[in-house]
Amino acid sequence: MSDTIRISVDAMGGDKGPRVAVEGASLFWRERRNTSYIFHGREAELAPLIARFPELQAISTIAHCDTVISMDDKPSQALRKGRGNSSMWNAIQSVKDGAADVAISGGNTGALMAMATFCLRPIEGISRPAIAAIWPTLRTDIIVLDVGATVGGDAKQLTDFSILGAALARALFDQDLPTVGLLNVGTEEMKGHDEVKEAARLLHAASGEGFVYHGFVEGDDIGKGTVDVVVTEGFAGNIALKTAEGTARQVGTYIRDALRADIVSMLGAAIAGQALQALKRKLDPRNINGGVFLGLNGIVIKSHGGTDEIGFKGALGLAYEMARNRVMDKIAEGMRRFPTLHPAPPAPAAPEPEARSA
Amino acid sequence: MSDTIRISVDAMGGDKGPRVAVEGASLFWRERRNTSYIFHGREAELAPLIARFPELQAISTIAHCDTVISMDDKPSQALRKGRGNSSMWNAIQSVKDGAADVAISGGNTGALMAMATFCLRPIEGISRPAIAAIWPTLRTDIIVLDVGATVGGDAKQLTDFSILGAALARALFDQDLPTVGLLNVGTEEMKGHDEVKEAARLLHAASGEGFVYHGFVEGDDIGKGTVDVVVTEGFAGNIALKTAEGTARQVGTYIRDALRADIVSMLGAAIAGQALQALKRKLDPRNINGGVFLGLNGIVIKSHGGTDEIGFKGALGLAYEMARNRVMDKIAEGMRRFPTLHPAPPAPAAPEPEARSA
Repeated sequence: MSDTIRISVDAMGGDKGPRVAVEGASLFWRERRNTSYIFHGREAELAPLIARFPELQAISTIAHCDTVISMDDKPSQALRKGRGNSSMWNAIQSVKDGAADVAISGGNTGALMAMATFCLRPIEGISRPAIAAIWPTLRTDIIVLDVGATVGGDAKQLTDFSILGAALARALFDQDLPTVGLLNVGTEEMKGHDEVKEAARLLHAASGEGFVYHGFVEGDDIGKGTVDVVVTEGFAGNIALKTAEGTARQVGTYIRDALRADIVSMLGAAIAGQALQALKRKLDPRNINGGVFLGLNGIVIKSHGGTDEIGFKGALGLAYEMARNRVMDKIAEGMRRFPTLHPAPPAPAAPEPEARSA
Repeated sequence: MSDTIRISVDAMGGDKGPRVAVEGASLFWRERRNTSYIFHGREAELAPLIARFPELQAISTIAHCDTVISMDDKPSQALRKGRGNSSMWNAIQSVKDGAADVAISGGNTGALMAMATFCLRPIEGISRPAIAAIWPTLRTDIIVLDVGATVGGDAKQLTDFSILGAALARALFDQDLPTVGLLNVGTEEMKGHDEVKEAARLLHAASGEGFVYHGFVEGDDIGKGTVDVVVTEGFAGNIALKTAEGTARQVGTYIRDALRADIVSMLGAAIAGQALQALKRKLDPRNINGGVFLGLNGIVIKSHGGTDEIGFKGALGLAYEMARNRVMDKIAEGMRRFPTLHPAPPAPAAPEPEARSA
């Protein structure tokens, strides 16, 4: 990896077309000059969009292809239709080929996960990839995974997710020993289903090497930021994520309605404007846009399909941090640290054992 | 059932002792004079508390018992220690004996569910009881179940929960044909695990009789109020509930901090005070306190253990509405309406087919 972070962009993903990806990259490039871009998609559409930003154009390449995966394509359809010749597949392929450090797409999550898994393959010793969310809490940002790649999952999968999540925490938050909690319906030992109880036993035994196992956590511990990494299978994790989004939107609507309820409140709200603006920024989902695919031989970031250029810029920021902080090396290091969880010989992913500083 | 709603109170449940239950009842009684109370617990503690409210005292009975189930008792321990002689058990027994119309406790949820199930038994044809939450949304209050009685669950259980939840919606919200949605990780047909897909097939076939099956819903549909009844197994449901609570608290903290950030904001907040007070009331978890145990031969309400008298009053309000609107009859009616889901002969619970008005 050079000092420049090379970002491979599926420019045709996302509900709002390629404009969002190009403008998002232009915005992000103004903040991070040590980036370059490969835009995958239809050249006839992309070229004029990129030409509007000459500075961006100078450090960008267009990789033409005709096929675009739609939001309605099932993962199997997407693979049949777009393997090797779609903007989504090609964006991932650039990472596999070493032409880019990280790939990003705002397309169909299921298709993207299927293609990423097929193209990059899971890391040796990891049974299933996961989608990690960077979740803002009252304490600090934390990591919650899996939020949608899997449905159900055994104890081995949950311990894999712990290693992956802890590696991401070390990479993004520069924490040497992140705390890991298993999402459950209570914090007592006898709670939950067999998979989560067995995972607790395995994590308890492995605790201290690369992460500290905190124990079970409940849904409300996510917003409190009780632990740095919350681990769960994808069904419960996706429901937690979406429920939190819904609740935040609900409370945001209450606030808006309350402050517009009468003229006096409007005046008060106007005076308190600066604080309310800060609050609005904090609650703006565009600032925390992006899910991270973890457990594959390469980094893929999923941006929300419906986001605008501000949101896409946020997802690019996440992609940048992941690449810059060598999350792949951190994962390989995590795998080596857990002989009890992963008795297989370590994959020779990182040529030199890297220091822990990000 | 007489015109007076007779409420059986486990006065020793809850973290804050019997004062909360007695004061909560006193507050509620001022609003609903057609109520009477049986307080189960230690007479020496209860009598002086109740004596402070002579009007409440006049319509209350104390049923003495020494044993109190603690918050730490496991369900099996609680059953061994408290069956037949604890305030929690006796509060439920009063419903079974016909001495009360509904029971309420702020005690340990697992113990309360174990005792309620053991004492009242599941309704014939219903495999497992559920805990239902009354969830405020942007549209109106809705019902979400199960939020913690079960872990995992097959298709039959999910259809049972649909019948129970729809009956509760008919009773509480006076809706003839509530909409039912199955909580899932996507709204497409192929999403989710086998249980939820099979439940969808069964509900689709039964739709129109007693409820309308809407299809799959996602976590963010809860806060939107997309359907009247959201059905899920207890693991995902509990995580959704707790995650929403955590998120609401998190956003509430952001608001408070934002409005205290500087003197100008404080001034603005003071002027907008009335609207902000209304907002605070809306977000006050004490106003939506209480879970409903559904699927047993009797009504049991779980109040939050940590709540105060305002919260307990809210839970009493829920208990009152459940009894007044004859939710047990509505469930029996629901069971009769679904011969496809429940081929067993209907239980003779309701002596006369009741009109649908609440």
